[in-house]
Amino acid sequence: MKKDFKANLDKIFYPDSVAVVGTNKVVGTVLHDILRNILDADFNGVVYPVSPRERFVAGIKAYKYVTDIPDPVDLAIIVFPSSVIHLALEQCGQKGIKAVIIISAGFKEVGGEGIEREKRVKAIADKYGMSIIGPNCLGVINTDARSKINASFARRMPEEGTIGFLSQSGALCTAVLDYAYAKHIGFSKFISFGNKADVTEIDLLYYLKDDPKTKVILMYLEEVKDGPGLMKAAREVIKAGKPVLILKSGRTSEGASAAASHTGSMAGSDEVCDAAFRQAGIIRCQDIEEMFNMAIAFAYQPIPKSKRVAIITNAGGPGVLTTDAAIHDGLELAKFSDETTAILKKNLPATANIKNPVDVIGDARADRYSVALSAAFKDPAVDGVFVILTPQSMTEIDLIAREIAKVAHHYNKPVYSSFMGEADVAQGIDVLQRNKIPHYTLPESMCRAFATVYRFSQERKEVSKPAPVFKDVDDARVEEILQEVKNAGKHYLTEDLSDELLKAYGLPVVESVLASTEDEAVQKAEKMGFPVVMKVVSDEIVHKSEAGGVILNIRSGQEVKEAFKTILKNAKAYDTHAKVKGVLIEQMIPEGEEVILGLNRDNSFGPVLMFGLGGIYVEVFKDVSFRVAPLQTTDVEHMIEETRSASILHGVRGHAPRDLDKIVECILRLSQLAVNHPHIQELDINPLIVRDKGKGVFVADARIMIKYE
Amino acid sequence: MKKDFKANLDKIFYPDSVAVVGTNKVVGTVLHDILRNILDADFNGVVYPVSPRERFVAGIKAYKYVTDIPDPVDLAIIVFPSSVIHLALEQCGQKGIKAVIIISAGFKEVGGEGIEREKRVKAIADKYGMSIIGPNCLGVINTDARSKINASFARRMPEEGTIGFLSQSGALCTAVLDYAYAKHIGFSKFISFGNKADVTEIDLLYYLKDDPKTKVILMYLEEVKDGPGLMKAAREVIKAGKPVLILKSGRTSEGASAAASHTGSMAGSDEVCDAAFRQAGIIRCQDIEEMFNMAIAFAYQPIPKSKRVAIITNAGGPGVLTTDAAIHDGLELAKFSDETTAILKKNLPATANIKNPVDVIGDARADRYSVALSAAFKDPAVDGVFVILTPQSMTEIDLIAREIAKVAHHYNKPVYSSFMGEADVAQGIDVLQRNKIPHYTLPESMCRAFATVYRFSQERKEVSKPAPVFKDVDDARVEEILQEVKNAGKHYLTEDLSDELLKAYGLPVVESVLASTEDEAVQKAEKMGFPVVMKVVSDEIVHKSEAGGVILNIRSGQEVKEAFKTILKNAKAYDTHAKVKGVLIEQMIPEGEEVILGLNRDNSFGPVLMFGLGGIYVEVFKDVSFRVAPLQTTDVEHMIEETRSASILHGVRGHAPRDLDKIVECILRLSQLAVNHPHIQELDINPLIVRDKGKGVFVADARIMIKYE
Repeated sequence: MKKDFKANLDKIFYPDSVAVVGTNKVVGTVLHDILRNILDADFNGVVYPVSPRERFVAGIKAYKYVTDIPDPVDLAIIVFPSSVIHLALEQCGQKGIKAVIIISAGFKEVGGEGIEREKRVKAIADKYGMSIIGPNCLGVINTDARSKINASFARRMPEEGTIGFLSQSGALCTAVLDYAYAKHIGFSKFISFGNKADVTEIDLLYYLKDDPKTKVILMYLEEVKDGPGLMKAAREVIKAGKPVLILKSGRTSEGASAAASHTGSMAGSDEVCDAAFRQAGIIRCQDIEEMFNMAIAFAYQPIPKSKRVAIITNAGGPGVLTTDAAIHDGLELAKFSDETTAILKKNLPATANIKNPVDVIGDARADRYSVALSAAFKDPAVDGVFVILTPQSMTEIDLIAREIAKVAHHYNKPVYSSFMGEADVAQGIDVLQRNKIPHYTLPESMCRAFATVYRFSQERKEVSKPAPVFKDVDDARVEEILQEVKNAGKHYLTEDLSDELLKAYGLPVVESVLASTEDEAVQKAEKMGFPVVMKVVSDEIVHKSEAGGVILNIRSGQEVKEAFKTILKNAKAYDTHAKVKGVLIEQMIPEGEEVILGLNRDNSFGPVLMFGLGGIYVEVFKDVSFRVAPLQTTDVEHMIEETRSASILHGVRGHAPRDLDKIVECILRLSQLAVNHPHIQELDINPLIVRDKGKGVFVADARIMIKYE
Repeated sequence: MKKDFKANLDKIFYPDSVAVVGTNKVVGTVLHDILRNILDADFNGVVYPVSPRERFVAGIKAYKYVTDIPDPVDLAIIVFPSSVIHLALEQCGQKGIKAVIIISAGFKEVGGEGIEREKRVKAIADKYGMSIIGPNCLGVINTDARSKINASFARRMPEEGTIGFLSQSGALCTAVLDYAYAKHIGFSKFISFGNKADVTEIDLLYYLKDDPKTKVILMYLEEVKDGPGLMKAAREVIKAGKPVLILKSGRTSEGASAAASHTGSMAGSDEVCDAAFRQAGIIRCQDIEEMFNMAIAFAYQPIPKSKRVAIITNAGGPGVLTTDAAIHDGLELAKFSDETTAILKKNLPATANIKNPVDVIGDARADRYSVALSAAFKDPAVDGVFVILTPQSMTEIDLIAREIAKVAHHYNKPVYSSFMGEADVAQGIDVLQRNKIPHYTLPESMCRAFATVYRFSQERKEVSKPAPVFKDVDDARVEEILQEVKNAGKHYLTEDLSDELLKAYGLPVVESVLASTEDEAVQKAEKMGFPVVMKVVSDEIVHKSEAGGVILNIRSGQEVKEAFKTILKNAKAYDTHAKVKGVLIEQMIPEGEEVILGLNRDNSFGPVLMFGLGGIYVEVFKDVSFRVAPLQTTDVEHMIEETRSASILHGVRGHAPRDLDKIVECILRLSQLAVNHPHIQELDINPLIVRDKGKGVFVADARIMIKYE
């Protein structure tokens, strides 16, 4: 049956009626607590316990089967053991329930029979057009007053807020809820999606994109199944102005499909994941704390207009530490206007530092902070304010926190805080947290959060630009070539076919023609233009150079004639039985910088492109970068700039800059090729010779591997 | 008068009697509170208020002047305004007081007159053989029951512990004390040393080295005045088995002495500081939290014997995150013995993961943790245990914390913990903290701390090895050369002098001799051995190559003759007035890898050596490393390995390894040169040609600059 995702997910988050299927009376078990949690959170709807054995649970009449419930049911939460879940699920289907949460474990994660059980769950979901969250999850929470449902076995209902949280791990959710509770961090929706047998993180991203209660989306993810789908969804969410922050684990596990090729061997799938996230505008977080440090910045405060900040502190040391961190993260200290300086001078003691960072001195009470704050906010050069406090004997911690909240209220500029310490500052921090002033234990985390928010605001418009499309490509010819290779039962393209394929896609392969006689060689070389290279063509001679079968830098018709003779003579001398088909006349590639372009397929993200400078840079420094196809122009630019050796292409040691535009074009063409021709499994251009700016690039050597079923 | 530092500092930390000079009755001011703090901490001695105006303070009889006190006084704490401090200090001197803490600000940090005041303070200290802490500081705390003195205006007396804390910033101390209080982190000594007019961080390091109550030393430092002194002190402390952790601010400020040379321009003084710290075995921390994360690991738990750890968790997601972090930090997951596996299998539910990381599953109570902990501790393959907990509905947080403390007590292996969350886990964390089980909010910080402790245990023996001394050097000749240059009023050495100087220090300069006639040239070249290079020698011809005055790769006597003629002819053609002194015959340097060695002087740390691969690696990648002279062999090895391009010297792309031993020797010789000849301000060897292993190195070009007063 066709699924209406949006309607089904609405029933999960905003049900009018809920059945808890498999509940019981034993307090302290998931089976019971999940029902109790719904009641405790003051759910805005009706709850029906379903239990084969009980007449009532938690004082509410229980039904034997979900089909016994006399009223319509929007959402079923199933806690039965995994072995019988399919029966309960069938009944839900018959009852017309479209929204289901399966809490129970014992599916894919246990392997064997569990995998079969999970397939059965999915089949039933599809049969009835149901949407299922789970199995093997903590459940779902919606703090929206219109619903107020805690359909989870989490210990507590979080505060209402604007952060949407998604997690593949249920246990992590309990830690997150506890952490957030202590810091007054609220959530709009809180979803443990478990094995994602049916509803995936991608479906949920789309749902939260349109959820007016959600401003920021956080996710803990262990496995990316559909990389391109995740990127697409993230891009749309980000386009809608909502940042997506993901903590992706499994950093060190070896990618499952470590391909043997050059590209593959260095593309640990985690590097690809890094690249894909950056490309889609997803902010990848290193740990839970970093994720929330950034989340509260996004959720609580306006986006800064520039990276010029003012620092206000009552302690010199922390002022220095904050300045260090700010500069390190690319922020700037605002230069105060004369007016601001005058106000500070007039109102602060002579020993205070009235330059940025402003030191209101250790004995400052709330009034000094207040003056400095107002002055900083008013200054047009300041687009963000950092407030630092250490608990000295005269510090009015609580009052200063209130003052920050009060003053900040009047300005549309972000303010972040760091009250350093723990016990004495706790009450002040509580005031800040309740007033949605982002607070950081460390000034360093504060600066990093600000820098991240600013960068997001600058880069977010870029992430959903379309990839350029080249019209001058010959897709039909490419398919013919691939078919030909397939028909021959081969996996690698021969040099001529590989050249032809690249040429069909507008890549600058070196021109080459076969000549069977001296005169033909002269004629063709003259037509091509000197200098040229000549190479023997013979099935028997594989190592052409070794056989004296390659002559470089031929500059005239006369030299062509001589070279032709020499090559034939050498070939005979090398192997008297060699049949020489002729001599290849090739354009002589001028000198230039060598770069490598690669294409590979990642299990999660599909086509991946690689870029790096040739030789030592790739082999010794592993100085390569990745992006997922299709790429847009800025992706390629970032990709190139990400390598440390990129500066060599800009011109170093007096050398002119190289033709970067042409490298960009080549990568974009490969990107289109990768997307349009999925049978191309691997492709390496090694090297691509890059000449000076405006003088183009040349494919010197390429290797293409195809895969077919 | 001669100072007895040790005795004076003993009087600061263990005084029998203390005078608070300049105190008053106004509660809530530093002047009063510092007296009150001494009383509140139950000081084991007598306190005398000194106040020109008050008859008593805090119920204790006050004296007008310190000289009025009828009994001997060990320690004076002065809180008078900076303008009159010298008077109070003189009286202390007359009274025979050898230990003084000056709390008051208004000295060097305010500039102008303050600088003079500070000089006066230092002069009085030296005159009377006094030791002074401060001025401009928070004071000093000693938690040792023998003294129990809070001679500071900090809000609280910290718990007793084994961490010694030193800080240049007073205000930061208040944040640290508050942070530590909340986490039950105790201190042995807590010292705010302020402007360090007399007693420096170095004196304090030596004092804490011998303090039996101190196991770990932490320091916040803004300015390194005496780098070599700091390194020496740190080495001795570390040799005594105590780690030194420093948070050094001012990372981004430009080094004051950015010299113009190649070496100097890249050696931002912060990079030198990084190098010096590593060399001395100092652990440089990025922020306060990181510093304490590491400090508690050192202070509370035994040093791990290996980097093989066991992870025990009740949540899969955090288990994955911890594994990621552990591997990332170079740790290994221990492989359990069959016995361990059997115990886990028998005692944990079937759904549990009995492999490392052990997942005792979300519904685990204390008993499962207990079984897993004991099994892990007993396993000989395990040398450290990480315990992760998330607050799920059945989790016995408090009990599990107690269980960890109980089980850990029986084994001499380190155990670290991370109870994830904040509110629900708070009580459990409190239990852990009281029981000195290091606790980390993030598993990532836990892994980092463990890795740091392990690395310290491995590297600490290395840091105090002596630098090798080369006996085959000619220091007298070097001094002669430097004197000659000085006498000529020059700053740069000419090529011949520079070669001679390096030769006197056993550096492999290229052999070269002057020949004035064709025959002499032939004779000398034959003696040297072919191939040789010939170069014109003429004061008028500076750019020799341009003038056709350099001919490479000369392989016979006949070729020498021809070259001689050509060079003379070219010289005449280039400049008819040029006076040719002769032709230089030089050994032809064979091909090899180019590296750069540099020597410079840092304002804080003195002689600094630089290493990097030549050309693009230095210029584009800034791939260089630094160390402070004198260096020992392992320093040089680390220095080379620190550069990313070092792998090129090990042999890449089929090339044989290069002669690393000889590079090491050159750097060690330069190190000795730098130490023995302080007038050498800068020295660059660029390039040093490095041949294959066993074939040596050659100085191809060098530049030496001297500085004299």
